[in-house]
Amino acid sequence: MKAEPRASHPLGPPSARDRGSVRRTNLALALRLLRDQGPLSRSRIAASTGLPKPTVTSLVAELVDLGLAAEGPTQREGAVGRPGTLVHIDGRHICGIGVEISSHYIHVLALALDGATTFEHRTALTAADTAADTVLDLTARTLARCTAALEQAGARAVGTAVAVPGVIDTPTGTVRYAPALGWRNVHVTEGLRHRLGTTTPALTLDNDAKLGALAEYAHEHAQVADMVCITGQSGIGAGIISGGRLLRGAAGFAGEVGHMPLDPQQRPCVCGRTGCWETMVGLDALLHLAADPDDHLHDPGVELEHRLTVLHERAVAHDARTLEALERVADALGLGIALLADVLNPGRVVLGGYFTHIGDLILDRVRAAVDQRVMAPDGGGCEVALSPLGFTAAARGGAHLALDAVYQDPGAAL
Amino acid sequence: MKAEPRASHPLGPPSARDRGSVRRTNLALALRLLRDQGPLSRSRIAASTGLPKPTVTSLVAELVDLGLAAEGPTQREGAVGRPGTLVHIDGRHICGIGVEISSHYIHVLALALDGATTFEHRTALTAADTAADTVLDLTARTLARCTAALEQAGARAVGTAVAVPGVIDTPTGTVRYAPALGWRNVHVTEGLRHRLGTTTPALTLDNDAKLGALAEYAHEHAQVADMVCITGQSGIGAGIISGGRLLRGAAGFAGEVGHMPLDPQQRPCVCGRTGCWETMVGLDALLHLAADPDDHLHDPGVELEHRLTVLHERAVAHDARTLEALERVADALGLGIALLADVLNPGRVVLGGYFTHIGDLILDRVRAAVDQRVMAPDGGGCEVALSPLGFTAAARGGAHLALDAVYQDPGAAL
Repeated sequence: MKAEPRASHPLGPPSARDRGSVRRTNLALALRLLRDQGPLSRSRIAASTGLPKPTVTSLVAELVDLGLAAEGPTQREGAVGRPGTLVHIDGRHICGIGVEISSHYIHVLALALDGATTFEHRTALTAADTAADTVLDLTARTLARCTAALEQAGARAVGTAVAVPGVIDTPTGTVRYAPALGWRNVHVTEGLRHRLGTTTPALTLDNDAKLGALAEYAHEHAQVADMVCITGQSGIGAGIISGGRLLRGAAGFAGEVGHMPLDPQQRPCVCGRTGCWETMVGLDALLHLAADPDDHLHDPGVELEHRLTVLHERAVAHDARTLEALERVADALGLGIALLADVLNPGRVVLGGYFTHIGDLILDRVRAAVDQRVMAPDGGGCEVALSPLGFTAAARGGAHLALDAVYQDPGAAL
Repeated sequence: MKAEPRASHPLGPPSARDRGSVRRTNLALALRLLRDQGPLSRSRIAASTGLPKPTVTSLVAELVDLGLAAEGPTQREGAVGRPGTLVHIDGRHICGIGVEISSHYIHVLALALDGATTFEHRTALTAADTAADTVLDLTARTLARCTAALEQAGARAVGTAVAVPGVIDTPTGTVRYAPALGWRNVHVTEGLRHRLGTTTPALTLDNDAKLGALAEYAHEHAQVADMVCITGQSGIGAGIISGGRLLRGAAGFAGEVGHMPLDPQQRPCVCGRTGCWETMVGLDALLHLAADPDDHLHDPGVELEHRLTVLHERAVAHDARTLEALERVADALGLGIALLADVLNPGRVVLGGYFTHIGDLILDRVRAAVDQRVMAPDGGGCEVALSPLGFTAAARGGAHLALDAVYQDPGAAL
């Protein structure tokens, strides 16, 4: 919660209302400092925030009361000086839940305030062959299990953010259009709330690539301010971090890169158009190039990671069809990434999802294609890397987004 | 100039150094308010900024001393109440200069602090057939005339920003690569400074599309926070405004949209690649589609606007070749704009340069193509419009950028 512009004006004395807002701002400031820098002494908090030490003492007491921070056992801080008590994030009480509904699975994950994973469950599924209602049934069931498990551990979820690959209307919690799932105008948050009842923590819906990018950005400790995170599913989307902020666009629909018309062969896409980028680089495109329909690489009953491992083994064993498939995907990836690098000039492009499982086989070729095509010298400084988070990024990003409510206003933990 | 983070902290009393910085911040705040809202009484300035009235009186006195503001003749403010003296921007003393070097012309333009045009000159040229040194000679000559004209009128330029279509290294003032001009590693600011001598006001170099977007954004009074401004020259670039900020990317190279590989016919591009978007929608592409090489539409000796008028007249007279050329450009424009709308979800796409001269003939078809291709419903709310600034946008944006130094720190006017 932001102080009103006039409240923080340095020339005017703060009013009573302003003081409440200033205190909330400072509480949040201290909590984020502990998240970003780890356990700190109260003097270090005072030095880093510029707040007087008595104020810091009172802020820490309030954070402890809220169950958000704890004071650790006396430790030696550094090598010299007297021992000091360190304040750290208390991960025991508050969690955020993230859910990803993808074309291949439902993934539910809870993160504690200190970033530890406290619940994780994945359900395999072929979304295109499953009714939206059934998908929501399955999601609600896992969410109920998650909430129960957290409760049993003495924790509480402050919110749940659900990721779906497609065009999302976040204010109404509606999937406008998700071609990879075959969904149009599905009311996700309403449907889940209906199934879960009134005890549900705040539910929000967002695009999978955007939430994935939030997770990647958090994982990089917000060090790369201009980043494009590309999902690797049957559908392809991008979460764009620009100048340290998630780029949403005017109506929240930015990042729909999967349907860039890049294929001269004009293959048909699930969206009804032809030549879309995801028909060249999506997971289904790779599997289709690499194996005949009766090959068990296509079997939805076999776990996705296992199928990707099989594909990887075939490549290592120099199977000609597999290698050619990977080369074609690499070249097409390079083509599209170069386009995005020309438009956005990111410092890093992160390949997520299935790319993380076969990335070592294609990365050199992708980088060469990018360097060759980008207009700016040396690819405009754009580095192409594999996601450290793989298929977990979108759900993690959802959990981060839910927890962010507390990091912006610690009072939200009440 | 920003106050240091700790300086503006509401809980700590400002130090002497902080107070200087606070005063500069407030001077700039008041000056920008006059720019954005027009002439205001001192009470209105106090109300809008939240500053005490005596502070406003002293700030206004300082702005008047600096030659940046003036107090107008007593006027009635609104219909009721007693007459009040209004403070307004003083346009007489300070100017910013913008220069655009394009493949068809050199455009030099000066704007007064109040936005009035105080100098404007355009030199026709065919950059691809002209040595970079000759282009810089011509530019320096016009700049010298501009500075002399401003001096004679009692004004002074605070800075000059030069726009070039290509990959720009702004910190060193170097054009890394400008295919439309045939330039590689041309030291523009150094070259101009060498020619103009020590009296030159501060010189900066930037990309034409980025400066054009700044001008369009200023012209819209910063109302459209997510905007993509597409230049219409032989080369095509984009200036991207995202969340009210110019999107520069990690190294400043964002917006290179002209070389998106969108043409299935893979026509060769000046950049050495094939299939680039600008081979489908650039000015030369249109002229090539619309007329044989010996047609005077291609004659660089005839003024560009006149040639576009001739082309427009042919279309109105239903000339089949002209109409087909325009349809092809419109369809290709729609294809690329839809891609950019999917990636960036702008509220508005502004077509500049030559598009403003033939835009009425193609706009409906472009809009239809965008609506049809964008993934989000109703084109994601993206409106396609013609620039009100046409070929003047980049030079205007340069002048705005130069003046911005004063709007950020009025002391820069000294």
